[in-house]
Amino acid sequence: METTADRVFIKEEGPREGFQIEPGPIATVDKIRLIDALAQTGLRHIQVTSFVHPGKVPGMADAEAVVAGLTPRPGVHYSALWLNQRGLQRAIATHRLTLEGKLTLYASAAFLRRNQNRDPAQQRDAQPELIRMYQAHGIPVRTGFVTAAFGCNFEGDIPPARVVELVGDMRRIARDQGEDLSLIGLGDTMAWATPDRIRRVVGMVQDANPDIALSLHLHDTRGMGLANAWAGLEMGVRHFDAAVAGLGGCPFASHAGAAGNICTEDFVFLCHELGLETGIDLEALAECARLAESIVGHPLPGKIKTGGSLAALRARL
Amino acid sequence: METTADRVFIKEEGPREGFQIEPGPIATVDKIRLIDALAQTGLRHIQVTSFVHPGKVPGMADAEAVVAGLTPRPGVHYSALWLNQRGLQRAIATHRLTLEGKLTLYASAAFLRRNQNRDPAQQRDAQPELIRMYQAHGIPVRTGFVTAAFGCNFEGDIPPARVVELVGDMRRIARDQGEDLSLIGLGDTMAWATPDRIRRVVGMVQDANPDIALSLHLHDTRGMGLANAWAGLEMGVRHFDAAVAGLGGCPFASHAGAAGNICTEDFVFLCHELGLETGIDLEALAECARLAESIVGHPLPGKIKTGGSLAALRARL
Repeated sequence: METTADRVFIKEEGPREGFQIEPGPIATVDKIRLIDALAQTGLRHIQVTSFVHPGKVPGMADAEAVVAGLTPRPGVHYSALWLNQRGLQRAIATHRLTLEGKLTLYASAAFLRRNQNRDPAQQRDAQPELIRMYQAHGIPVRTGFVTAAFGCNFEGDIPPARVVELVGDMRRIARDQGEDLSLIGLGDTMAWATPDRIRRVVGMVQDANPDIALSLHLHDTRGMGLANAWAGLEMGVRHFDAAVAGLGGCPFASHAGAAGNICTEDFVFLCHELGLETGIDLEALAECARLAESIVGHPLPGKIKTGGSLAALRARL
Repeated sequence: METTADRVFIKEEGPREGFQIEPGPIATVDKIRLIDALAQTGLRHIQVTSFVHPGKVPGMADAEAVVAGLTPRPGVHYSALWLNQRGLQRAIATHRLTLEGKLTLYASAAFLRRNQNRDPAQQRDAQPELIRMYQAHGIPVRTGFVTAAFGCNFEGDIPPARVVELVGDMRRIARDQGEDLSLIGLGDTMAWATPDRIRRVVGMVQDANPDIALSLHLHDTRGMGLANAWAGLEMGVRHFDAAVAGLGGCPFASHAGAAGNICTEDFVFLCHELGLETGIDLEALAECARLAESIVGHPLPGKIKTGGSLAALRARL
């Protein structure tokens, strides 16, 4: 019999977003240990590192060593982040990563200026060349991402109509280059989202793009992470980025309190309690969260790793 | 002009629930300092201490000294918790507290047995005597509370219909004694609630009791606190218990990971972003959260105290 389960897809970003922001150096062997443990939990997509300038992000200087050291598990996609052609070439050279092309536009011109020193037109104009770079390497371009889709520390609230416009721009740019986007990511880069804003922006993007899947990249800086995720689930969003134990944060958002992505195991707990499948063993994932905490050597914000799941309690009754 | 603002009422329980669970002794003067600071934020109801057996809860042995030491601010209700007539008499003797009678039933017989060594019939039968005790002191009985309304570590999931039945029982008991309950509290004592469960239970209780207000007492043990609060707000609930900085936890739930109530300032942030009034100065409250953290001497879970509010960012743009 075919399963008709309602399934949520999670991209684990803890090893990449999480370790990047840790002040102390994390041993390569510890990064690999966590990645290999995560791959045993049922997670199907793990972003393992960033191929960025080692002078700018010293914590990611061991990107090649991390990828070379992990034990690939069949069915698990290992991916990485890069910011330019040099980074992409390093990722290609590992021969072990799932490579996916991604377009990125910024809903905040002020943040784009700070982050990339470009204006919105320049950022748009840079995308076709990016697609051609991916095409030259035979890498599919299926994802478009809107940075700061819900608000920006340097620009304030973002009109939802602007996000809808940027999504349309990206789809058009991709089509013009012979590509077809199938997933649009909305990034709450500086944690301005609240659940009502999630509902409004997601709803407007869905109305204009009924033929495409959405994903949410949420930060928990202001404590709204899980409420926002639930709002997304309620709107039918089924793709989420998350970080085990709540590892991480965005070092470029210039924000002292920048907290990490939503916590993977807390989000998986929510999904399972809602009757949504994730394919993930929550108890094994909570064990990974405790491992992450022991690796970084300080408390991490996830709750289930200490609070425990209800499935575990129910099983004991 | 009359205001028609949609208003949320928050009972601050940090000084009571929060300090109760702290392992180290908290100086009476620090408790008073936090309470006085909280009273300056616009909070209208602060639960300041518990009149319980000093041998059982040593951290509350200074209950009288705390109440005597605070500087009452006009318009702020200072309340306390007690578990029996002796505790009530101590609270009365302070002559400084807003005294309110409360009925309590348990949705979990197993938890009631562990906590009070009673069965549900005994607990029901104890309520009329409780009302008469309050009546003898001229104290109104307006609130009924359902403990473990969403699930129990010792009994598992709780059928929502049982909660509806208990609410009906409490209202009937009160009426039989000439009292009329105007507020029903639903307690997620052991953090089993998820937003869909909040919606289901709140909805069923509202359907059966359209003439009464509901309040939610939520714990964040599994990271669902704010998502649950949002679900409650969406259902029209306008009364919430919360603890500044996320102080606290329930020492009687026998649960290692028991986390505190939802964090007051994170919840106020959510309310304000949703356009709901609280009458509270969020920046002053975040300052109280930092004070609470410095008093307990370890990190507390609230996010806004480090993440900052959006109003503050918007004001700087």
